[in-house]
Amino acid sequence: MILTVTCNPAVDVTYHVDELRHDGVHRVREVRRRPGGKGVNVATVLHQLGEPVTALGIADDDFAGRVREAGPAASFVPAMTEVRRTVVATDGDATTSFWEPGTPVPEGTVDELVALVRDALTGATALVVSGSLPPGVGPGTPARLAALARQAGVPVVLDVDGEPLRLAVEAGGAVLMPNLDELARLVGDPAHPDREVAALALRTGAPVVATLGAEGLVASDGQQTWRVPAPEQVTGNPTGAGDATAAGVARGLAAGHPWPQVLADAVALGSAAVLRPVAGEVDLDAYRRWREPTRATG
Amino acid sequence: MILTVTCNPAVDVTYHVDELRHDGVHRVREVRRRPGGKGVNVATVLHQLGEPVTALGIADDDFAGRVREAGPAASFVPAMTEVRRTVVATDGDATTSFWEPGTPVPEGTVDELVALVRDALTGATALVVSGSLPPGVGPGTPARLAALARQAGVPVVLDVDGEPLRLAVEAGGAVLMPNLDELARLVGDPAHPDREVAALALRTGAPVVATLGAEGLVASDGQQTWRVPAPEQVTGNPTGAGDATAAGVARGLAAGHPWPQVLADAVALGSAAVLRPVAGEVDLDAYRRWREPTRATG
Repeated sequence: MILTVTCNPAVDVTYHVDELRHDGVHRVREVRRRPGGKGVNVATVLHQLGEPVTALGIADDDFAGRVREAGPAASFVPAMTEVRRTVVATDGDATTSFWEPGTPVPEGTVDELVALVRDALTGATALVVSGSLPPGVGPGTPARLAALARQAGVPVVLDVDGEPLRLAVEAGGAVLMPNLDELARLVGDPAHPDREVAALALRTGAPVVATLGAEGLVASDGQQTWRVPAPEQVTGNPTGAGDATAAGVARGLAAGHPWPQVLADAVALGSAAVLRPVAGEVDLDAYRRWREPTRATG
Repeated sequence: MILTVTCNPAVDVTYHVDELRHDGVHRVREVRRRPGGKGVNVATVLHQLGEPVTALGIADDDFAGRVREAGPAASFVPAMTEVRRTVVATDGDATTSFWEPGTPVPEGTVDELVALVRDALTGATALVVSGSLPPGVGPGTPARLAALARQAGVPVVLDVDGEPLRLAVEAGGAVLMPNLDELARLVGDPAHPDREVAALALRTGAPVVATLGAEGLVASDGQQTWRVPAPEQVTGNPTGAGDATAAGVARGLAAGHPWPQVLADAVALGSAAVLRPVAGEVDLDAYRRWREPTRATG
């Protein structure tokens, strides 16, 4: 069982309208809603792959039910009055989106989350902590959850930004998945991501996987560095590609696969996510076509 | 106790953003949510005036709680999976809005609503039925609720459009509040709203109140016709002005006031609503300044 943690989930709402107009009134033809947030996207991809997964985190009373309807098992500390929404309005051509800020959570919520994750770690094969933090959740929380997992002997993937990432680097021991900007900020050698991931892996004592968007990813365990190109140039919706990649890394770690295989799988999942119009899904046919482990070059 | 019925309520969401851009991604600085829909707006205005009021209707599990937090008593048939939203995004200058379609309700919902309204009518002083109908609620429903109220001796105000309005005209006996377009469609004399309201009042056997936007209203009981100008030219947010006017009509009917007083009060409330940035509220100071009944000219 793989666990994902989402501290700042969202309900992703898509509005289909006839014609998007600036300063206009729009009757929405069709509304789609799905439970989102980076960790939830990781969970729905793993579920789609047939992988047993439980989505954990902080939300409102309704959110866990929405996640279960989408497939994964789910358990969320119900500390929010209402989970924020992301609203994406599109006429098929133009797209305007609105990202609500995170819903604040009361004191004691992180302790409840820690207890929830601690209980779930028994028998878990990997833990993924992804995404931003709502007001009321301290920046050290992802590192704290990672430490719990390591104590339980469970591999951890952290896909977090900013101060939570910086604190996770300090704590060490977790597989980090920074993007290129974050990597440059942490290591300061933006022209050479290969060297950067290697330097960061040495500093944390754990592998680092940096996603390069359409160019695949670069990863290092401190000894070896791998650059894995995308299997094909694909166009589509890049939102959620990083989450599918994180799902691949977590699944590979859980299965104990060698890194080149883990990474080839992860990059194929990222590309297969671009082919789907919404985050949290992959194109399974494309993924199966691309999943040969021979693509990784050491 | 005045009753309002809202068959197709909405959660009104306002997004404040720094700069509204076509085809852009917006981080929302501030989110405001309020329970809305025309009958709910009538109820919140009446509550603000200190009038005992209960908001009834069809909604989801959470909606009645939201209304109670806003002030009025509330009881809704929980037949919707989720109440639709209206999203209004603004940078203080431009405004883009998205109106979700109504949430369908299952068979039997209208019978539950009828039972809810019938129970509440005991001891009620007026009933207001406002707004559109969601899929699954037949167009005869407002007229059916109006008939219930008349049997109980309770005056009824219907602020509905299209086929529900046409059926209410056929049934007769309820105070109708058509806008000018609807009035012209029903009576076919668009140049003379005074004659139209009189003709319609004779046809239904009950008073008709037509709102003219910034120009106030015109009303008739079939014998007498009144034109009541707005107390002042005001600029602001006209959304919800009609609902505040309906609140004034219902309150006057409930108190048994003479029509000129009812109408002067109603038009003052409509103008006082324009001064507030959101629907369902009036500027009480402006309203008190304007409420003299001498403005009506017979």
